[in-house]
Amino acid sequence: MTKTLQVLGIGHALVDIIAPCEESLLADFSLTKGMMRLTSPEEAAALYERMGPAVETSGGSAANTCAGIASFGGQAGFAGKVGRDQFAAVFAHDIRSIGVSFHHGVSDSGNPTGRCLILVTPDGERTMNTNLGAAAEFAEGDLDHAAIQSAQIVYLEGYLFDPPAARKAFFKAADFARGNGTKVAFTLSDPFCVDRHREAFRTFIRDRVDIVFANEKELLSLYPGASFDEACGSIRSECDLAAVTRSEKGSVVIQGENFVEVPAIPIPKLVDATGAGDLYAAGFMFGLATGRDLAACARLGSLGASEVITQVGPRPQRPLSGIARAHELL
Amino acid sequence: MTKTLQVLGIGHALVDIIAPCEESLLADFSLTKGMMRLTSPEEAAALYERMGPAVETSGGSAANTCAGIASFGGQAGFAGKVGRDQFAAVFAHDIRSIGVSFHHGVSDSGNPTGRCLILVTPDGERTMNTNLGAAAEFAEGDLDHAAIQSAQIVYLEGYLFDPPAARKAFFKAADFARGNGTKVAFTLSDPFCVDRHREAFRTFIRDRVDIVFANEKELLSLYPGASFDEACGSIRSECDLAAVTRSEKGSVVIQGENFVEVPAIPIPKLVDATGAGDLYAAGFMFGLATGRDLAACARLGSLGASEVITQVGPRPQRPLSGIARAHELL
Repeated sequence: MTKTLQVLGIGHALVDIIAPCEESLLADFSLTKGMMRLTSPEEAAALYERMGPAVETSGGSAANTCAGIASFGGQAGFAGKVGRDQFAAVFAHDIRSIGVSFHHGVSDSGNPTGRCLILVTPDGERTMNTNLGAAAEFAEGDLDHAAIQSAQIVYLEGYLFDPPAARKAFFKAADFARGNGTKVAFTLSDPFCVDRHREAFRTFIRDRVDIVFANEKELLSLYPGASFDEACGSIRSECDLAAVTRSEKGSVVIQGENFVEVPAIPIPKLVDATGAGDLYAAGFMFGLATGRDLAACARLGSLGASEVITQVGPRPQRPLSGIARAHELL
Repeated sequence: MTKTLQVLGIGHALVDIIAPCEESLLADFSLTKGMMRLTSPEEAAALYERMGPAVETSGGSAANTCAGIASFGGQAGFAGKVGRDQFAAVFAHDIRSIGVSFHHGVSDSGNPTGRCLILVTPDGERTMNTNLGAAAEFAEGDLDHAAIQSAQIVYLEGYLFDPPAARKAFFKAADFARGNGTKVAFTLSDPFCVDRHREAFRTFIRDRVDIVFANEKELLSLYPGASFDEACGSIRSECDLAAVTRSEKGSVVIQGENFVEVPAIPIPKLVDATGAGDLYAAGFMFGLATGRDLAACARLGSLGASEVITQVGPRPQRPLSGIARAHELL
């Protein structure tokens, strides 16, 4: 089958509700800075009550990555589940209007479209509180097999391990992909998410994943007690290709005997870290899908990350293709 | 009655949907740059379809002004009508969380909360397309008389002249205010809005308004054929106090024989002009309500305007009180 999509992302379809906040708000709700936490509707309501004026924008980790690939000029699709409400219309509009095909399920349970309350502290770090709503209902029946088959890479969020039906759909998607010449990429998503599902993650990676994306904290959470070098050795033995981001220290790419280090792109000021990992994955996979070498892929990833963290919100507001050309990366 | 509120705003409760766009999109939809146009649900859907990825944020002209007053450290309330939907929750959260009391009506007609599609061209100008929805149903029964009575100033949007029921409520609000020691302030809102309602605006100003806010284009639309000086002379004879903004030329304040000119505050780059007039009115009325002289009021207005046009969205993201102190205006 012709591979018309470079990447099909499967993940949580979320609308982000972003507000600046003081450090004390994190303490009041016992939140760990920089992490993602799943919240009940009641907890989300209590936290929202305490948040200041916010902006709403489409989010969701894999969806952000797909938007980034489109922004680089690539072809991406996204699959996720929404409710029947205004946030669903916002999500669908935003993902389609950047040129990403949307292979969506719509929930009939009455659950609202998922939302993520994002608190941005004065240091630019973001702390996320997700009420999955309809996104948690993503199940096998929502898979679009033709879309998976049409993609060079299917990209899966670690966050989908949380709802059992989504995890099952996820395994099915990976198996179907590998049976149809589609590579499977997987992001560890969040150190706490890794902690919740460590053994399942490792088994999944060994059995079904070609490409792993992680940041340093997530990788170390996958191999507790290991040094960074040891963890790199472990991931090397468990998948074909891994790209590990290290914030201002740049990223490393590990493939067999290859170990490629690429520096971060310096930024004037960290405004909002939301989307950094998502946009790194976007640049990296856009590079892979267009036949670039690993260092070039990592540089495109760094570029996507550096752009998104100097603005508010998880999706690039300026076309990444132009910025990449200005950096002579395209 | 003790005046516990400095300003009670009455206007359209809207959620803004903001996206950058190319000039050509304005041409395709025959839109006049910088203006506000009322659209049907069908037109709004067609335009939204063509817009790129957007951010959503609470808006509405008078509501932005009230948010600005709170940001200066003042006491403001806002009255408007919303639907029963997610955008209503967003609007209510945002206005309350900045410290503005929300005296709202909720529509039972099934109409959605009003929204304004805002196209931001590369020059930073904003062109607005409003589908009023539930906001257009604001009527006499939605007036909170105790809130009007408790305010030093009631601030009314010219935009409310469009829906007949809102206009009627508006007249009632003004009469009740003046009968209870509350000043009536009125913004002309938009040159096309003035054009639609010129004679009614002039009669309303002469009979019921103490303070008029306008920009230069709106003032000239009120007095067609007049020069700027002539128009200033006309408005002087028709109300007690008028503040007229002139973009980078600053503003003029007219009260009887007083004619005070205040320069604009220079900005590094116009990012998004949305909210400039609204935040000028905020600073000006905060100054008036705290007993400052006209020049100081105008300088606070300029400060509010300069801050909001260097960011995306119509409400200030940083506290105006701190910025005003840094400028030694508070």
